Amino acid sequence: MRPRQPASFYIDGIRAGDRLVLSRAITLVESHRPDDQALAQAVLEGVLAFAPTDTIRVGITGVPGVGKSTFIEAFGTYLTGIGKRLAVLAVDPTSQRSGGSILGDKTRMETLSVNPQAYIRPSPAGDSLGGVAHRTRETMLLCEAAGFDTILVETVGVGQSETLVHGMVDFFLLLMLAGAGDELQGMKRGIMELADALAITKADGDNAAAARRARVEYENALHLFPPTPTGWQPPVLTCSALTNAGIADLWATIEQHQVRMTATQRDGVSERTCHRQRQALDWFRTLLRQRIERQFFGQPGLREQVQQLEQQVQAGDLLPTRAVEQLVGKAI
Amino acid sequence: MRPRQPASFYIDGIRAGDRLVLSRAITLVESHRPDDQALAQAVLEGVLAFAPTDTIRVGITGVPGVGKSTFIEAFGTYLTGIGKRLAVLAVDPTSQRSGGSILGDKTRMETLSVNPQAYIRPSPAGDSLGGVAHRTRETMLLCEAAGFDTILVETVGVGQSETLVHGMVDFFLLLMLAGAGDELQGMKRGIMELADALAITKADGDNAAAARRARVEYENALHLFPPTPTGWQPPVLTCSALTNAGIADLWATIEQHQVRMTATQRDGVSERTCHRQRQALDWFRTLLRQRIERQFFGQPGLREQVQQLEQQVQAGDLLPTRAVEQLVGKAI
Repeated sequence: MRPRQPASFYIDGIRAGDRLVLSRAITLVESHRPDDQALAQAVLEGVLAFAPTDTIRVGITGVPGVGKSTFIEAFGTYLTGIGKRLAVLAVDPTSQRSGGSILGDKTRMETLSVNPQAYIRPSPAGDSLGGVAHRTRETMLLCEAAGFDTILVETVGVGQSETLVHGMVDFFLLLMLAGAGDELQGMKRGIMELADALAITKADGDNAAAARRARVEYENALHLFPPTPTGWQPPVLTCSALTNAGIADLWATIEQHQVRMTATQRDGVSERTCHRQRQALDWFRTLLRQRIERQFFGQPGLREQVQQLEQQVQAGDLLPTRAVEQLVGKAI
Repeated sequence: MRPRQPASFYIDGIRAGDRLVLSRAITLVESHRPDDQALAQAVLEGVLAFAPTDTIRVGITGVPGVGKSTFIEAFGTYLTGIGKRLAVLAVDPTSQRSGGSILGDKTRMETLSVNPQAYIRPSPAGDSLGGVAHRTRETMLLCEAAGFDTILVETVGVGQSETLVHGMVDFFLLLMLAGAGDELQGMKRGIMELADALAITKADGDNAAAARRARVEYENALHLFPPTPTGWQPPVLTCSALTNAGIADLWATIEQHQVRMTATQRDGVSERTCHRQRQALDWFRTLLRQRIERQFFGQPGLREQVQQLEQQVQAGDLLPTRAVEQLVGKAI
């Protein structure tokens, strides 16, 4: 075992942009050991003081088969080419994945993984959804403190993780395939309305015409959605990781969104700052709620009792109000 | 003050279909007084034994101006005409409404309110969102026990109550106007994806052609949505409360959905039953969570402490994990 280093070792290393130290700090954050967690918290507090807040966090989702890794490889290479320092994080509890992606992601992104301006961190293994969400936020902070100004957070569009990722990024991008039928079967309802932009991938060769048609269809459809609270109308773009067509336009769209969010002021605070503040508050409240619940359900014998009550509630033999009373006491 | 009656008085009255007793029981359910609540729970447990489960619960939403009351008046009159016994409940905390609708709803539905086959219950005043949701479920149960086989739950499509109502009904209907622009401005994002059907209202006179065009547009748009978990493709209909055009078709659609949900079996249990069981479980879990939190936040001085921490978290001066630690203790 490596000797334990003090928090300052990690903080200084991250400040100096040392990727090895960054990786070790993320491993600490992901660890379930109480002493690792205590150290991780000290590191996080240390970097909080100098982590820049003018970074950009982009969530990217789409069902398996949409070509997410290939897209991120092309998009990420473009971003480093225009001078961005890029971190790519994957958010998905292992249980929800098709499996084997932990190393897979890294090897699939062959160009990015050896790009000195890019840092790829695969998703932590065997973690719960809540845990992943929590640690991804902290990992973003560490990456930003280490000088990465552009963060891509990748997730698979089939589970609950999209809502979580949507709650921690500045821009949420949904990748789609032309010829939606099969793909939509696997997509979770509600994701389309989270998107700040749709990008139709694989818009090249024989597929280009279909992608253009799909673009028009989705444009018409999104037009019938209520606008986002900031009045942003999510655009639909096409792109190709093969020809790089549309990749620069997509980044321009994200920048345009950021400019708009920064320019829109509300009580002297930009919409962008408001948005991040709300996310921080949501994060806190979610964590607090989780902790309160864990404390409650940690009582001896409680889980079994809840299970029994749930069976009766489900069968319609017991009213939920009564079941709750039996667990928590009389006051309603 | 009226003398207090025992639970059996309410239970027997409801079983006999006595509307006055039903109304008084609902008032009990809505009361915040602990003794009323205890009695209400006893009444609810009493009716649980004989309340039928083969009822149909339809949630109806749409932004103000879509003509919800007029629609419910026409739709409800049609339903009682074909032999249904109808209860209409409104779900909206007063604070979220444009105001004055408590009596307004009842007077606006002039025909229904004097229809012996219909029972209209306006929304309880001054209640929280969670409280309203909770009491609406219990009110539905009372109405079903009193012999009302068809329940319409009305809500305004601008707030959070739609998700709550979606979680307590068998079918969720979204009313829309042709010429969506203005209306969509007021609608909450995500509601369209909750809908089991869209109905474009006021499809009469000069507006009929626009309604037909809107129908095609929405059909194309919904086609691009992922299907519901049961494979139901939400249809788009047009209707008019003036001419009654489309009203019967709409009911046929709801019945068709029910037939399908009843016919689809999963492990020997119909999709319809599964759906209601899941809803009961969700209700229980939501209530339990609310109660646990209330217990936690009820600790002396805690709200003030949380507020202070929230300010620091929002400003980016404090990590949410640390803030939670300060409130609940060290274990992560």
